[in-house]
Amino acid sequence: MQTPWDHRYAMRTQRIKGSAIRELLKLTEMPDVISFGGGMPAPEVFPTEEFSVACEKVLREQGAQALQYGPTDGYMPLREMIARHSARYGIEVTPENILITSGSQQALDLVGKLFINRGDRILVESPTYLGALQAWNAYGAEYVSVPSDQDGIIISELEKALRFGPKFIYALPNFQNPTGVTYSLERREKLVELADRYGVPIIEDDPYGQLRFEGENLPSIAFLDNKSRDQNGGYSGNVIYLSTFSKTLAPGMRLAWVIAPAEVITKMVQAKQGTDLQTPTFNQIVAYEVAKNGFIDQHVLTIRKIYRERRDIMLEELEKNMPAGATWTHPHGGLFLWLTLPEYMDTTTILQDAIAEKVAFVPGESFYPYGGVKNSMRLNFSNAKPEKIREGIQRLSIVVKKYLR
Amino acid sequence: MQTPWDHRYAMRTQRIKGSAIRELLKLTEMPDVISFGGGMPAPEVFPTEEFSVACEKVLREQGAQALQYGPTDGYMPLREMIARHSARYGIEVTPENILITSGSQQALDLVGKLFINRGDRILVESPTYLGALQAWNAYGAEYVSVPSDQDGIIISELEKALRFGPKFIYALPNFQNPTGVTYSLERREKLVELADRYGVPIIEDDPYGQLRFEGENLPSIAFLDNKSRDQNGGYSGNVIYLSTFSKTLAPGMRLAWVIAPAEVITKMVQAKQGTDLQTPTFNQIVAYEVAKNGFIDQHVLTIRKIYRERRDIMLEELEKNMPAGATWTHPHGGLFLWLTLPEYMDTTTILQDAIAEKVAFVPGESFYPYGGVKNSMRLNFSNAKPEKIREGIQRLSIVVKKYLR
Repeated sequence: MQTPWDHRYAMRTQRIKGSAIRELLKLTEMPDVISFGGGMPAPEVFPTEEFSVACEKVLREQGAQALQYGPTDGYMPLREMIARHSARYGIEVTPENILITSGSQQALDLVGKLFINRGDRILVESPTYLGALQAWNAYGAEYVSVPSDQDGIIISELEKALRFGPKFIYALPNFQNPTGVTYSLERREKLVELADRYGVPIIEDDPYGQLRFEGENLPSIAFLDNKSRDQNGGYSGNVIYLSTFSKTLAPGMRLAWVIAPAEVITKMVQAKQGTDLQTPTFNQIVAYEVAKNGFIDQHVLTIRKIYRERRDIMLEELEKNMPAGATWTHPHGGLFLWLTLPEYMDTTTILQDAIAEKVAFVPGESFYPYGGVKNSMRLNFSNAKPEKIREGIQRLSIVVKKYLR
Repeated sequence: MQTPWDHRYAMRTQRIKGSAIRELLKLTEMPDVISFGGGMPAPEVFPTEEFSVACEKVLREQGAQALQYGPTDGYMPLREMIARHSARYGIEVTPENILITSGSQQALDLVGKLFINRGDRILVESPTYLGALQAWNAYGAEYVSVPSDQDGIIISELEKALRFGPKFIYALPNFQNPTGVTYSLERREKLVELADRYGVPIIEDDPYGQLRFEGENLPSIAFLDNKSRDQNGGYSGNVIYLSTFSKTLAPGMRLAWVIAPAEVITKMVQAKQGTDLQTPTFNQIVAYEVAKNGFIDQHVLTIRKIYRERRDIMLEELEKNMPAGATWTHPHGGLFLWLTLPEYMDTTTILQDAIAEKVAFVPGESFYPYGGVKNSMRLNFSNAKPEKIREGIQRLSIVVKKYLR
């Protein structure tokens, strides 16, 4: 039906579509569906008591400040805390290099607003994070996709793609959403070197870095790029780094941050003014109170333990129940793994059957900018409890087996 | 200095500039400056105790939900409460007509994202709200300006401007930011009629409607437009209506809402997914807890009383101290009044002197899309305490008098 609004929409609305993930979140509200579809943390680990204490303290001691407008760039003590945290990983920054955002999704939107003109090509991994595609489709982005393997982005393919003149590279080096894959050190170093040679900046998205439960921590792209530069201790160079409190504290607070050269932060702050003025003052001060005495360091130990256990159970059940021809990744951290079925299977078709059997996932096709790959799916292992994971993978395996030729 | 990032910025960054208002917010942090520059509520009226009780209750009873991801369109009980509130003013809506946003600034950004193509003309009052210009400059908007008088937008000028084919009309009918002017009932009716005749939608921005402390409440544009339509009880037609909890509860929570036809809300929800996924779950549930039993109705009585007193003191001091040739508006509500000095004066020049004398305001020029008008300023009367308002206007008058010819 035509409505009075139809002819008013801007060109870009043709590219703004509802996401399969968000539609699936609705399914997770039905209590009898076991959903591996969302990207939700385990609610059991939310530090509700710590938040409660902090809210009471902040409102009592700083109520007038916490409920008032505040600066667009963020609450200074929180930015200083993030600077100290970053220094532990070799990223030497000052608060001028840090912007607090309303979730990492907003950082992706601001990147789009600042850097993307209609038709610009963005270099992405294939598959890549759906939320980034959603953010950048609104600005008319086009994509150059580079395949990954179990060690991350494939360097020879990356170099070919760089010849298309992308505006920037979007990389998720740790426990990537959707595949769970981690870049090896060598790939990280090569990425930095190639980006520098071709003069192409990198957006490094690292929501899960703290959630490693296997293997050694690897240096960030931001660290590798910055240390190779001749500077006077400042953060400069080629990399905008994104991280978040959504996975270490709570996503319902919508708190994340950007690290970038100071002149990029200045531009981002101006763009953020027009976008939402500021991230909630209250949330920033409360999160600072919760985190300031090293709470997150302790808390992530609990999260890692629980997520590792859930990953192990999911891997075990996949091994036990999936038919021959199905393969999956072995993530060293994060929230997701990636299941690949025989090539003749279509996971979008399978999803409808799966939902009838009360189990859900995200078809892999959603994570490719132009679709095309039909036989994969993303499975989340952080949200459901162990017994539900067992039950859900068993249900899913029964559905998949029906499609065997 | 050229940096590696300079050549990467998108075209639109040329239009994204730091706002005079936000720069001035920094001045308000210096304790000896009396600032009439910001748009901040009186911190004395923040309901810190009510928020504290609600935070504790929400974290105890609904912690897992409040700290988790939630739906993009917002917390259902909050949307239902807003629907009930709207019905009291004759706007009959269901939650499908309501989107929760991260402040009204985000609603303005989403409007820009959905409706503005580069070069589109937006019809605005002259002067108009600076934050809307900031939001829409990022999408390449151009503007057609229509002057206002003490009864709001001037209808004969509005009709001339409609012939330029604007994409939409941006109207602030209650205690406008920056002038404090309120549209008369006749102007409201004429606006609705003309917009309908020319087929041009209206964005009605109403952050201050609850803060009327003089005169009778007048019907909203949304109500007048919708009641003139032949519909089956649904909200349809020409008006997107914006309001907020920033002035009735607290701006530091960043909570506002949009009312629009359901198909527009669907598009906005999709755009919001890519922008920040959702407004913080925690803030929405806490605000609902604070507001659900009619608290805001009681609380706005207090706010109105305090703001009326502050407005009266500012008017009294202007009368006593400003030189002949200065005129000002007499707002019936809201947070601002508009001071016009003799035509040969330039308030941007005067501001520098004023800051030296420890008093601040926003030069009127900031509120015109293409600048030009030099001899006016916006004065905020909600934030400073009465004795500070007296002192500040006295200081300001001394500075202004120095510029008399």
